[in-house]
Amino acid sequence: MSNWISVKEARQGSSAGKSVEIRGWVRTRRDSKGGFSFIEVNDGSSMGNLQIVAPGELANYADEIQKLTTGCSVVITGELQESPAKGQDTELHADAVRVLGWADPETYPLQKKRHSFEKLREWAHLRTRTNTLGAVMRVRDQISQSIHQFFHENGFFYTHTPIITASDCEGAGEMFRVTSLDLEMLAQKGGPVKYEYDFFDKPTFLTVSGQLEAETYATSLGRVYTFGPTFRAENSNTSRHLAEFWMVEPEAAFFDLADDMKLAEDFLKQIFTDCLNKCGEDMAFFDKMIEKGKLDQIKAVIEKPFQHMTYTDAITVLEKASKKFDYPIAWGTDLQAEHERYLTEEHVGGPLILTDYPSSIKPFYMRVSDDGKTVAAMDVLVPGVGEIIGGSQREERLDVLQRRMAEADLNEEDYWWYIDLRKYGTVPHAGFGLGLERAVQYVTGMSNIRDVIPFPRTPGNADF
Amino acid sequence: MSNWISVKEARQGSSAGKSVEIRGWVRTRRDSKGGFSFIEVNDGSSMGNLQIVAPGELANYADEIQKLTTGCSVVITGELQESPAKGQDTELHADAVRVLGWADPETYPLQKKRHSFEKLREWAHLRTRTNTLGAVMRVRDQISQSIHQFFHENGFFYTHTPIITASDCEGAGEMFRVTSLDLEMLAQKGGPVKYEYDFFDKPTFLTVSGQLEAETYATSLGRVYTFGPTFRAENSNTSRHLAEFWMVEPEAAFFDLADDMKLAEDFLKQIFTDCLNKCGEDMAFFDKMIEKGKLDQIKAVIEKPFQHMTYTDAITVLEKASKKFDYPIAWGTDLQAEHERYLTEEHVGGPLILTDYPSSIKPFYMRVSDDGKTVAAMDVLVPGVGEIIGGSQREERLDVLQRRMAEADLNEEDYWWYIDLRKYGTVPHAGFGLGLERAVQYVTGMSNIRDVIPFPRTPGNADF
Repeated sequence: MSNWISVKEARQGSSAGKSVEIRGWVRTRRDSKGGFSFIEVNDGSSMGNLQIVAPGELANYADEIQKLTTGCSVVITGELQESPAKGQDTELHADAVRVLGWADPETYPLQKKRHSFEKLREWAHLRTRTNTLGAVMRVRDQISQSIHQFFHENGFFYTHTPIITASDCEGAGEMFRVTSLDLEMLAQKGGPVKYEYDFFDKPTFLTVSGQLEAETYATSLGRVYTFGPTFRAENSNTSRHLAEFWMVEPEAAFFDLADDMKLAEDFLKQIFTDCLNKCGEDMAFFDKMIEKGKLDQIKAVIEKPFQHMTYTDAITVLEKASKKFDYPIAWGTDLQAEHERYLTEEHVGGPLILTDYPSSIKPFYMRVSDDGKTVAAMDVLVPGVGEIIGGSQREERLDVLQRRMAEADLNEEDYWWYIDLRKYGTVPHAGFGLGLERAVQYVTGMSNIRDVIPFPRTPGNADF
Repeated sequence: MSNWISVKEARQGSSAGKSVEIRGWVRTRRDSKGGFSFIEVNDGSSMGNLQIVAPGELANYADEIQKLTTGCSVVITGELQESPAKGQDTELHADAVRVLGWADPETYPLQKKRHSFEKLREWAHLRTRTNTLGAVMRVRDQISQSIHQFFHENGFFYTHTPIITASDCEGAGEMFRVTSLDLEMLAQKGGPVKYEYDFFDKPTFLTVSGQLEAETYATSLGRVYTFGPTFRAENSNTSRHLAEFWMVEPEAAFFDLADDMKLAEDFLKQIFTDCLNKCGEDMAFFDKMIEKGKLDQIKAVIEKPFQHMTYTDAITVLEKASKKFDYPIAWGTDLQAEHERYLTEEHVGGPLILTDYPSSIKPFYMRVSDDGKTVAAMDVLVPGVGEIIGGSQREERLDVLQRRMAEADLNEEDYWWYIDLRKYGTVPHAGFGLGLERAVQYVTGMSNIRDVIPFPRTPGNADF
């Protein structure tokens, strides 16, 4: 029977005195003049390493232990003792160090030397062996767990809306094509595309949102949420865009805009609270190494109610601002990132929910307000990131929906099932979308979105 | 302040005496001779409906309440009382019934009459308003939640491996193409495909498995799992195949085959236990209406240790079996569904883990055993479904992996990053894959896989 425990568990003061086995990878080795070595070992379970004290008496001390370098894999048995050193509660006094795999320091890319995040992207298969990327992915996991927990505790069912779709949601374009046709043969033969030979007998795409399908489930199961990959074939080579990213989309029957905003605020606060409580060591690292003051910023967000402002008021604020913007400001135009960030960072100094956008700049499914000019939409803006959540109450009135679809030049036949929801037992309902990567960026302070997803997909890049 | 509560909560005996608001959809209405009506209302939160007693004195009794039909949406306020009727703890005595949306009985497809599951697939946007499909999707949600909980509690990090990929995992073919090229234009212009104009500058596909990428994270974070959509462009029009389905793939560093099998068994038992404990009403429904004896079957599975058998022993059992099989049996050939089901259903009468398959029929990444002929693979078979989990210890020895890749005619350059894991601090590791839909089928007894996923994708079908 093995007494294998994780580095995370071994580092707890309560583990002192135990005989244990540790399995992991060497971060550093330092030989002491006293004839023994300190080995820092990490197994991914936590940011911090376990310090191993390997005595010179071990049989393989000269042949193996003194040759250990960064990246080697080891299995170590010994007794955990209280550590006299600062910054760690325990250390492992080894009675055996077994080397499983070497990592040739001549070729292993991750030496002690610090690499740029850009360089690390070339080694995306190894980069989680570094402190920063390991911490990012543990926080990403925690946020994902919190998402499931939050919605489950609030009576939402997890729903898998389709990835391959024949409809294009908002008529937004910029979608990837999915096909089983042989492109080379297609190009060679010429002539029209014969969809009867394609897998689905018609053109199909990768989804840009599961919202419309989620609405069908909200109007039967009551409260649902999606959490899955979404796609944009947008040729944006920026630090804010990915071609493939993960999105969370709750949708709730009998919710109006006020319910929706409350849900979004409670949701974000729960995620942030969980990150602070459950990823303390990782969060302290981000606060120190990536964005100073991050912890205080998040705590302030959790404590205070989110500010609210209508789009119309926001336009007034922006018009009066002494700051010069690159893009013009006028009622009826979309807010740009610079506007959103001014509002949340400089005007409010915290999260801000903007509401009641002009209907002309919002999709057909958002509910038209009594003024006839605006829709019951809301965007949540946070400092450092800008828009993190976008949502709305949905149009539940059949005639209004049909009019809005006509205005948007959408074909009712393509949306027959969506329209059915308004024909048969229609109800007010609302929902929103959160980009997981934006949330991870906000929590960690990481500035490039490519560093908060395992294997980023961007123009020209589908490696690994 | 609204006192809105869910039907699920309202049905609990402890809710009797409360003044509440209920929002949901009418399942049935029955007018009593006493001058009042019984209305069964459901809001998706549970299988069971809440019975509403609507007195004839209500202002809209004749004009609206007596016209309510299946599918209408309503908001009802009143007092919950203990119910004298059998099969329900409470009923709601209404003081107001507000109709939100009608459902014309002439055109609404879901009348009281029972429809075939096949017919219901045509109304996939409405079918979760039926008892069976609603229960299926609640159980699917529960299994998904259990998956996250189980792995999180066991130290596994949720990892999002890429959906769009330029590599094809096992060289298995049958993958969907992803492109931003205009197929019509491609066909029209003819000539070679110019990938420099495609989004990723090269041919890309939809993933068939996240395993190889998950291995990169297991060898840094220690224990990880994926849970996301996977794809097969396989032209199989059967009740067992989908072109798009959800897969769970744990991968753990320092795990051998025995650890992997224990993980799989613990995992399945936890999922099954959670379904019994948390979806009692839905499970009772399946036991009664879909597959009699399901509850006892699942309880037996939870209580007993899974049986183990090597592939070689399984061949002997099959050769000796009195049953006639359609496919021949010989050491070195793949087992067919009929063989697997014989072994688990008739020979063992419960879950069975088959191990040590011939290396010739398994992918290059499975660890070669000392006999040189078999690999450290395991498949978990369950009655009624057959294979539900497939996994293995992975080949961690660089030279053996390279030999196996050469035998499989794979190009090492395409897998440079996968090979790197064996060059730098290689460790034994193992993992498996569970098809979510197979698990839902097993738990619910639903015989067609198209009825356990919201919007099934199959040859010729990408509707909704």
